[in-house]
Amino acid sequence: HNTKSASGEQRRSDCPIACTLDIVGDRWSLLVIRDLARGKQHFDELLESPEGIASNILSDRLRTLTRHGLVKREKCETDGRRLVYRLSKAGWDFADSLTAIASWGLRNLEKTAAFPDIRR
Amino acid sequence: HNTKSASGEQRRSDCPIACTLDIVGDRWSLLVIRDLARGKQHFDELLESPEGIASNILSDRLRTLTRHGLVKREKCETDGRRLVYRLSKAGWDFADSLTAIASWGLRNLEKTAAFPDIRR
Repeated sequence: HNTKSASGEQRRSDCPIACTLDIVGDRWSLLVIRDLARGKQHFDELLESPEGIASNILSDRLRTLTRHGLVKREKCETDGRRLVYRLSKAGWDFADSLTAIASWGLRNLEKTAAFPDIRR
Repeated sequence: HNTKSASGEQRRSDCPIACTLDIVGDRWSLLVIRDLARGKQHFDELLESPEGIASNILSDRLRTLTRHGLVKREKCETDGRRLVYRLSKAGWDFADSLTAIASWGLRNLEKTAAFPDIRR
């Protein structure tokens, strides 16, 4: 049943949930999107989040998210030697799913703290 | 920064997104929830989905989802020797996040097919 996705990777099915999870379905990708939605832009800032992502995992997830068009990698406007990462239109669009996941967590899991506003 | 969750497992932070992903953040859990939301109840039915989940992974994910209260494991009403798996109230509540993920996939990924209605 598998077909190749646009990026040439193996798809598990044509289900939009399965295909989305083939891109972001791991314990770290959505936290990277969360942080970008909160306004973090630099690699070092993303590395500082309390969950303690390892730098090689962060690099890998940023690469995957960029390849699939959720994230744009650009030169920093104030310092051309640095790179910044920003959500693309599709990346911002995904923030709706994050909001749904955050509200579920707040409603159903003990001792979770309110999710700071997403800067849009 | 880490605290133990209610189930005694290590949490990465108190962010409701991170805590939710600690339970369902992998390539398979959400597909199991999807299938239960579509009305599948038996282990064999869940095993048949086109993504081809392995039976040991399916067992593990059902166990995790049951432990965290998203899934209820019950005796089958028509055949008491069989078990059925059903979404709990919290599990159904999570289906909103799946809907958001499914719509994102439909809008943003090529060649994904419309997600069949969730039977609620």
